[in-house]
Amino acid sequence: MSHVDTNSPSSWKDALLASSSAPASFQLIKTLVYKPKTAKTATPVPVVVIAREDTETSSSAIGKKLNLKELRLASEDLLTEFFSLDKNSLSPLALTHQTFSRVQTVVDASIESSSSDAVYALHASSSSSTVFLTGKDLLAYLRSLETDTTKLQVLDFTELASGTTGPAPVVGGAATTKEKEDAKVEGAVQIAIGVKKEVDFAAWYTNVLIKADMLEYYNVSGCYILKPWSYSIWEEIQQWFNAEIKKLGVQNAYFPMFISSKVLEREKDHIEGFSPEVAWVTRAGSSDLEDPIAVRPTSETSMYPSHIFSLSPDYSKWIKSHRDLPLKLNQWNSVVRWEFKNPQPFIRTREFLWQEGHTAFLTKAEADAEVLQILELYRQVFEDLLAVPVIPGIKSEKEKFAGGLYTTTLEGYIPTSGRGIQAATSHCLGQNFSRPEMFNICVEDPNDPSGQGKAFVWQNSWGLSTRAIGVMVMVHGDNQGLVLPPRVASIQAIVVPCGITARTNDDQRKKINDACEELAERLRKAGLRAKADLRDGYTPGYKFNDWEQKGVPLRLEIGPNDLAKSQTLTVRRDTGSKNPFPLANIETTVQELLDTIHKDMYTRAKEAYDSRLIAVTKWEDLVPALDNKCIVAIPWCEVEACEDHIKERSARAAEPTDERAPSAGAKSLAIPFDQSRWPAIEPGKTKCTACGKDAKRWTMFGRSY
Amino acid sequence: MSHVDTNSPSSWKDALLASSSAPASFQLIKTLVYKPKTAKTATPVPVVVIAREDTETSSSAIGKKLNLKELRLASEDLLTEFFSLDKNSLSPLALTHQTFSRVQTVVDASIESSSSDAVYALHASSSSSTVFLTGKDLLAYLRSLETDTTKLQVLDFTELASGTTGPAPVVGGAATTKEKEDAKVEGAVQIAIGVKKEVDFAAWYTNVLIKADMLEYYNVSGCYILKPWSYSIWEEIQQWFNAEIKKLGVQNAYFPMFISSKVLEREKDHIEGFSPEVAWVTRAGSSDLEDPIAVRPTSETSMYPSHIFSLSPDYSKWIKSHRDLPLKLNQWNSVVRWEFKNPQPFIRTREFLWQEGHTAFLTKAEADAEVLQILELYRQVFEDLLAVPVIPGIKSEKEKFAGGLYTTTLEGYIPTSGRGIQAATSHCLGQNFSRPEMFNICVEDPNDPSGQGKAFVWQNSWGLSTRAIGVMVMVHGDNQGLVLPPRVASIQAIVVPCGITARTNDDQRKKINDACEELAERLRKAGLRAKADLRDGYTPGYKFNDWEQKGVPLRLEIGPNDLAKSQTLTVRRDTGSKNPFPLANIETTVQELLDTIHKDMYTRAKEAYDSRLIAVTKWEDLVPALDNKCIVAIPWCEVEACEDHIKERSARAAEPTDERAPSAGAKSLAIPFDQSRWPAIEPGKTKCTACGKDAKRWTMFGRSY
Repeated sequence: MSHVDTNSPSSWKDALLASSSAPASFQLIKTLVYKPKTAKTATPVPVVVIAREDTETSSSAIGKKLNLKELRLASEDLLTEFFSLDKNSLSPLALTHQTFSRVQTVVDASIESSSSDAVYALHASSSSSTVFLTGKDLLAYLRSLETDTTKLQVLDFTELASGTTGPAPVVGGAATTKEKEDAKVEGAVQIAIGVKKEVDFAAWYTNVLIKADMLEYYNVSGCYILKPWSYSIWEEIQQWFNAEIKKLGVQNAYFPMFISSKVLEREKDHIEGFSPEVAWVTRAGSSDLEDPIAVRPTSETSMYPSHIFSLSPDYSKWIKSHRDLPLKLNQWNSVVRWEFKNPQPFIRTREFLWQEGHTAFLTKAEADAEVLQILELYRQVFEDLLAVPVIPGIKSEKEKFAGGLYTTTLEGYIPTSGRGIQAATSHCLGQNFSRPEMFNICVEDPNDPSGQGKAFVWQNSWGLSTRAIGVMVMVHGDNQGLVLPPRVASIQAIVVPCGITARTNDDQRKKINDACEELAERLRKAGLRAKADLRDGYTPGYKFNDWEQKGVPLRLEIGPNDLAKSQTLTVRRDTGSKNPFPLANIETTVQELLDTIHKDMYTRAKEAYDSRLIAVTKWEDLVPALDNKCIVAIPWCEVEACEDHIKERSARAAEPTDERAPSAGAKSLAIPFDQSRWPAIEPGKTKCTACGKDAKRWTMFGRSY
Repeated sequence: MSHVDTNSPSSWKDALLASSSAPASFQLIKTLVYKPKTAKTATPVPVVVIAREDTETSSSAIGKKLNLKELRLASEDLLTEFFSLDKNSLSPLALTHQTFSRVQTVVDASIESSSSDAVYALHASSSSSTVFLTGKDLLAYLRSLETDTTKLQVLDFTELASGTTGPAPVVGGAATTKEKEDAKVEGAVQIAIGVKKEVDFAAWYTNVLIKADMLEYYNVSGCYILKPWSYSIWEEIQQWFNAEIKKLGVQNAYFPMFISSKVLEREKDHIEGFSPEVAWVTRAGSSDLEDPIAVRPTSETSMYPSHIFSLSPDYSKWIKSHRDLPLKLNQWNSVVRWEFKNPQPFIRTREFLWQEGHTAFLTKAEADAEVLQILELYRQVFEDLLAVPVIPGIKSEKEKFAGGLYTTTLEGYIPTSGRGIQAATSHCLGQNFSRPEMFNICVEDPNDPSGQGKAFVWQNSWGLSTRAIGVMVMVHGDNQGLVLPPRVASIQAIVVPCGITARTNDDQRKKINDACEELAERLRKAGLRAKADLRDGYTPGYKFNDWEQKGVPLRLEIGPNDLAKSQTLTVRRDTGSKNPFPLANIETTVQELLDTIHKDMYTRAKEAYDSRLIAVTKWEDLVPALDNKCIVAIPWCEVEACEDHIKERSARAAEPTDERAPSAGAKSLAIPFDQSRWPAIEPGKTKCTACGKDAKRWTMFGRSY
């Protein structure tokens, strides 16, 4: 099949998922070419490594196995020389009778042993075409190239990577290996995620999400399956936020997901902001609809024409009483924005879950106050639940919500990519949607003595989406996988029985298991989310690894020794630090440990953010700071043309960009409310870093998501 | 504008809402023609009544006012004679210079006095065309027809209906009328809902939903806005059901709302069941999609191809372990079924909210057990939360879920319409979706000694939707409005200060208000949902009426007399019965009263259901029983052709049907699990009531929603 040109595994996968010709499930094949270090006079024999995209292929382990020194990824020149292909087009099919004998070819054993249902995607001599083969057919092709002197080598890469048989589940009953099981994992050096966060952040991110059981790819591009492990985080956020907004008098409701084209198009600025991304339903069953209907990208235009907003509830009066205000509604739903940029799970998806609050007030002062009240709740979601530091501020005119008056925002920061990320926004819409030529939302003006006057309401809208989960993963995750902040983890403490070997008798085994279950139960009674992992047939090492990948904040181990001493060994996910604690008052200990973990995770992330938020007053320092993965704060003139110019100049100067990044130029992120971090702006004296005109406020600029 | 032909106010409204040419808001005008009783020799002068669709037009009150006897709706013949139009096409515009002087024309005062923004819809000489006029223009037209002898009559219909000026809000400060305010409402005979439940059930239902502030119409036909008053009921159901399924090990997740056409069409029976109703997205922004994408009508086909179901979670194994079972997932979302039948809020809507559970088991026995476990939870939702009696049973082959193995159901009953209604269903899908040629969902067979065998999983799916709210309204509501069962009411007890008159001094007024607030607070502390209605400028009568319309189960009044005696007067919404209770242990009293209200509401509904569920063993008794608003139970052969035949024969025989009813013929509702209600079927002896063949089980048949 043919598809759009792809330059990375993720874009390739997306291209295939977007197509209707691809099979329902498949796995990508990666083809890597390494060049060993050889004497200068010798001709190097390249090593071609063929494996599933998610298989770890350690060049040092392969080199060791093949007895080759310092394997390095081959240059584009070498690829062209041998295969006449670039790295994006490379595939096992590039190997022919001509080339096979000039290289060493190594294939992962799991491809050969995979079931006959397993389908693999390979490029067909081009990065814009793909063929699908079974493992058997792929191996058959490669074997057909073998000569008497050059044979295909099949290696078990999983074994190679871990140096042991690894923490694979022992299927079919009790453990068969007799070694002391705990040591197996602790001794092994391994990267659970298969690719390092610092090396390929985009691939690391996807791997973490999949290996932590958060997410699954879906056969409609840009849409993803939220598995229970991530959805439960959303439920925790929902529960907390719902309780808080109800205290403010906000009521939940549900408005339809469809918006008629006529209504959607009424607010010109608003629709201009959204129309390129609107998904349209044009057909039902086999009938074409008279008018296409939009799937909501946001609900302003579905809610504001309704009587809830525009009419008195008793229908006999065509204008609301000012006593019907404030009106505060919220809904939890999903919205659709059909972006054509590269999608990224949680961060930029075509359908996402969020809450959208919509409120109306008699006065601007009340609306202004609520905008900040909600922004403060969002700050608590990020900082107090997700341990993610954010900086509150206001958006520039260019970056504000389409059709609104002003937008307040929480800006986050992803240290690994050095990019800013918009975490949540709370908009004041002013009277832009309520004015007569728009949705005409008014009440009787209490200040008009004639009783005939109308007052047009002041409106806000505010939203928090599942993007928050993506930010949390990016900020806290490490090379062992996800690291969950304790307050949103659906399991806060996992209790694992240890030290059970083949020599352990049934009585002792039962005692240990019972102690684990009892501990978990005690913690649950204390209001903590705890679970005992008593699965048979899995080693403790496998379980450690499993829960570490999934990010459970705290592991509690109980072995024979702990049992004797009435203690449990606590192991922190975030730092790995281990401490035995007596079981006597374990509820308090665990609660305190979880609080400490939260605080430490937040503090580390805050320090990273603070250290990379750099004040820049000379233009020549700006791009180097961005390239050094910093967010810059500059005294800024707040002129839109200057913002465009900054974006343009910083993009031109930038390094080759991460293909996942939507924008390589820096844009304004926020004008922070707290200006006291930086020297005071002296009106007429302090100049804009970018254009030299008078600066107004310190403004954060950065590359961003 | 032109539109589809309409034969009822609701279909007319839907046709207008579905069109892009209609104004954003409008009200329907009804035109009723009455014939007074006259001496046989006299020529009757018809009375043409023009009012807003939702205005109560009492023929007896109008007759009294005009001094005419026994006004009766005119026959179609009379309409044809006078206007050459049928009743669906009738409109004020049918009045011309020719006809105006031959009739008496009465128009509601509120049309004349309505604001210049108010737009009215009138038929333009045909039931498939509509013009929109302001009240002023409409009156101007009618006045243009006046002659010296025939004048237009403007009457205040609201006043006419209530016999008083009614409980209108006193806007603009303290009450201006000096009468003893409480008496005003108690003395007045009025129907808050404007149309009686027994007279026009469909119009009553819509009016209740709107006047109780549950629902608002929307400008996409078949979609409705769920306002906080109804959404909060859904939240109560969610909270309870979520807690229960989590106890069973069910986890929540979220799957995308879009399904690729290829995947949707894989299961043939399934897609045949849904395809006529699927909404298709074919365009995003201004780009046509390569392949159209379906908006989910249900999620079987979006979930079952996923790795959660079909693959091992660690991706390296292409088959799950049997230890990964059971798999139990649920999601709360909205689904879209673009029905072309008449929509009805909550009962049949194009988008609706529901939960859908999807589970997989190793054995049929486990799947069978869960189907019933879930059905029992649904029974508790209906009977224990909503006080709605239901009968559990199994669906016939014809009525089961498309593509499933068998469907269990809870069947409800709406006494007013005499129709059955499917309340919730729990399906066993068998292995129909898991088999190899479908989604190939299997695990290693633990019973195969070779370890190579596959076992295809047994699957269930089960759903409960916002239809439950509609059933609750239909069963319990009365001519005063909604009656809420206490356990789902967002306000269970409303505290209203009473006996405050113009003579009440500020101190006394404050004491009464404080006592009300204190009482509400005490009840809230006891875990009850209570609120004090201290709104200024509204009479107690207005408040009583307001909360009665909204269905609050219990009203607590505190007046000067109650204050003196340390008591409160309790007024039950369901029965109207009043009892004073001491404030001393009011928490217990109120809790007990709410429990009693629940029990009584359930019992009354149960008695109505039981008394109308009639065993029928002779065919000639069947249709009369249906016409008498009964559900019939018959010994049935369980042959599909017989079911078709019953439907056909009972439709032909039926009375002219309620236009809201989707089906006038009787279909099978359920084969109840509890067959002991009826005499035992004697195999080979008891015959099918419909076809005379051997009967298998007693089966409920009825007209239905």
